[in-house]
Amino acid sequence: MLIHIRKDSLISVLQLVLKAVSHNNLIPVLAGICIEVHTTEIVFTTSNTSMTIQYRVSQDSDLLIIHRTGGIVVPARYFIEVIRKLNEGLIIFEVNQGLILTIISGSSQIRLQGIDPNEFPSINKEYHCGAKFRINNALLKSTIRQVAIAASSSEARPVLTGVSFDYNNDYLRLVATDGIRLASRTIYTENNWNNNTKILIPAQNLYEISKMLKNDDDTTEIVTFASQVRFTTNKLTIDSVLIDGVFPSILNIIPKSYMSEVLVESNRLLQAVECVAVLAGESKMKIATTMSALTLFSQTADVGEIQNEIPLIEMEGDDFTISVNGKLLVDLLRSIESNNVRVRFTGNMGPIIIISEDTDSSTMFLISPVRSHN
Amino acid sequence: MLIHIRKDSLISVLQLVLKAVSHNNLIPVLAGICIEVHTTEIVFTTSNTSMTIQYRVSQDSDLLIIHRTGGIVVPARYFIEVIRKLNEGLIIFEVNQGLILTIISGSSQIRLQGIDPNEFPSINKEYHCGAKFRINNALLKSTIRQVAIAASSSEARPVLTGVSFDYNNDYLRLVATDGIRLASRTIYTENNWNNNTKILIPAQNLYEISKMLKNDDDTTEIVTFASQVRFTTNKLTIDSVLIDGVFPSILNIIPKSYMSEVLVESNRLLQAVECVAVLAGESKMKIATTMSALTLFSQTADVGEIQNEIPLIEMEGDDFTISVNGKLLVDLLRSIESNNVRVRFTGNMGPIIIISEDTDSSTMFLISPVRSHN
Repeated sequence: MLIHIRKDSLISVLQLVLKAVSHNNLIPVLAGICIEVHTTEIVFTTSNTSMTIQYRVSQDSDLLIIHRTGGIVVPARYFIEVIRKLNEGLIIFEVNQGLILTIISGSSQIRLQGIDPNEFPSINKEYHCGAKFRINNALLKSTIRQVAIAASSSEARPVLTGVSFDYNNDYLRLVATDGIRLASRTIYTENNWNNNTKILIPAQNLYEISKMLKNDDDTTEIVTFASQVRFTTNKLTIDSVLIDGVFPSILNIIPKSYMSEVLVESNRLLQAVECVAVLAGESKMKIATTMSALTLFSQTADVGEIQNEIPLIEMEGDDFTISVNGKLLVDLLRSIESNNVRVRFTGNMGPIIIISEDTDSSTMFLISPVRSHN
Repeated sequence: MLIHIRKDSLISVLQLVLKAVSHNNLIPVLAGICIEVHTTEIVFTTSNTSMTIQYRVSQDSDLLIIHRTGGIVVPARYFIEVIRKLNEGLIIFEVNQGLILTIISGSSQIRLQGIDPNEFPSINKEYHCGAKFRINNALLKSTIRQVAIAASSSEARPVLTGVSFDYNNDYLRLVATDGIRLASRTIYTENNWNNNTKILIPAQNLYEISKMLKNDDDTTEIVTFASQVRFTTNKLTIDSVLIDGVFPSILNIIPKSYMSEVLVESNRLLQAVECVAVLAGESKMKIATTMSALTLFSQTADVGEIQNEIPLIEMEGDDFTISVNGKLLVDLLRSIESNNVRVRFTGNMGPIIIISEDTDSSTMFLISPVRSHN
C-alpha cells in the first residue's frame, strides 16, 4: 500500500473509530486499527467485540491520493499519538514487504510494526434483517440521551444495562430502567421496511453512537439482525451486539392513574433540586406541595439542611409529600428539554411520574420513592 | 454575625481559599473555611498545615454589607457546593446563637452546622523576618513554572521536593532538582530589605501560589521567617512551611565547561522531541548531531521506531551522541520561553545543558544521560 492523506482529515476519522478500540489484551489485534486501502477508498475499522466501527474515506485529490492498494493493522494508541504530533499537511503511508508501516511527514520518519489485516475479525454479515428504518440524527441523539440515563450501570442484571428498542412499523419506543428509575420516549420513524421487532441495545454503546452523530440534519439508518444492530450515517457504520434476555414489561410498571399533578418550570425545578441535592444525605430528598409552591428539602446529620421552594403554575388533586433519591432525580431532570414539566403523584408507595409538557414529546420519567422514616 | 455578600465576589474568594482546604480528616476543623466578620472587612482563612491562605474582603455597598460582626468555621465542601447552586445577587449569612450558619438567597434557605472559629489554628505570627523583597507577578509565575518542574515528586528525599530560594540582597536564585534534572533561574528583586537568606519551599505549594497570582502587573511581597515564608499580594496572604534539610550545592552539579554547543529553534526542538517521545521505549531518546541537523531517535521493541531531524542554526565543537529520558526532556522544553535554545554537550557521562538564548534570561536546565547499551 502507498497513500498520501491529509493530517486533519485522518485525525477526524481516528477520533471516531478510536471509540471501539479494545483495551482488553486478550485479543491483541483488537487493540489496533485495521486500515484497508482499496482502489477508490480506504476503510478504517476498529472493534471491541461489543461494538464495531467502520469509516470510509474516498479518493480525493485534496484529502487522499491512493497510489497502491493493501492493508495493515496498526497499534491504535501509538498510531494516533504519533499522527497528532506530525506537521499539518499530507502524510505518506507505505507498506512494502512484511508488516511494517512507514509513515513520512516533513523530517519525521516512523516505522510501526503491524499485524496482518486478515487476522482482524471481519464485520459480521447477517443477511436476514428484522427491521429497517431511518431517524433524524438530532432526534435520535436527544432520545438516546434522555432514555439511556435510566439504564443501570451495574452488571448484576444485564438486561437493565440495555435500552429497549420496540419497533412497531411506524413508531419506535425506547425504554430503559435500573429498577428505581424508568425513562421512555416514543418517536416516529421514516422509510420503514419490514417486521415489527423488539431488541435490547447496551446503553453504553448507544451513548458512544450518539456522540458520533455529528450532523444534526442528516439521518441514520437502523437495521436490526438476529444478534446485532447496525447504525449507518454517511460514511460511518457502527455495529452493536444485542443483549439477550427479557426486558421488564413497561405496562406493569407505569401506573394507570395518578392522585395529584403539578405543572412547574423545568429550569426552576432543576436548579432547586440541584441545590437541595447537595445535602441529600443518604441521597434522600423530600418533595411536598404546600399552598402554591413545591417544596424540596434535604438534610445530612451533623452538617445541616436545605430547603427550596418553586412556584406552581397549575395544580390538580390534593397536597402530597414523598421522598426520592436526590441524585437520581437530578440526572433525569438534566435531560428534560421542554420549558415546563408535569410532576404526578401516584400514592405513597407508587413512583413519581415526570412528563414533558410539549404535546409533541412523549418523554416520560418514573422514579420510585425512598421509604421515609420521618 | 449578619452580612449581605454578592454571590460572584464570594465565589471568586472561595475558589482561591479552597486550595488550602485539608482533605486529611485528622484535624476536622481544617476541612472548613474560617469566616471572621470584623467591622469593616471579612477575613476568609483555610489551612492544610503545609499552607495557609487568607483573603480579606472590605465593606463595600455593592459587594459586601456588614450588619453585625462574628465568626464561624463552615465545612468547605458543602459550603462551596451550596453557594454555587444559589441564584446570582446578594446572599444573606447569619449566625444567631449557637454555631448554625443560616444562608438565605431567593427562596432557598440553608442551615449549616459550624465550628467555633477559636478552634481554627491562628495564622502563625513570627516577627523576626530573614529577608523581605518584591517581585513582579508575571516574572514570579514564569520563574516558578520553569524551575519547579525539575523538583522531585517522590518523598524519598524530602529536600528534592522543594525549590531553593537563594536570596542575595538584590538577586534571587531559584533551583530545583530531582537528581536527574536540574532547573535554575536568577531574577532581580525590588524593594529589598534585610539579610541574605536561603530557604527551601515545597514545589507543590509554589505551584498553587503561582496559580493564585491573577494580576500580572501587580507585585508580590515575599517575607521569610525561621520556619515559614509569606507571600502577600493585594488582599491575599499565603503562608507556606519550609522544608528542613540541606539542598545540594548547585556549584558541584553544573559543569564548568562543555565540548559542543548547538543553537536550535525552541518550538521545532519541542515538537520533534514530543513526537519522538511517543516511542521513547523505556523512556530513552537518542540525541545526535549529524552534519547540519540535530537528530532525535527512539524505539520500542515490537512496536517500532521514530526519527526526527531539526536544522541547526549554529554549531560549535564536534559531533556528539547521547541518550536521555524522553519524557523528562519534554517537560523541561515545554517551559522554555525564548525563541531559540542552546544545547550543550559536556561529555558522555555529563549532563546535557539547555539554556535560553535571550541574554536577559538566566534560565538553565540540566538533564543527566541514560546509559546506552547500543
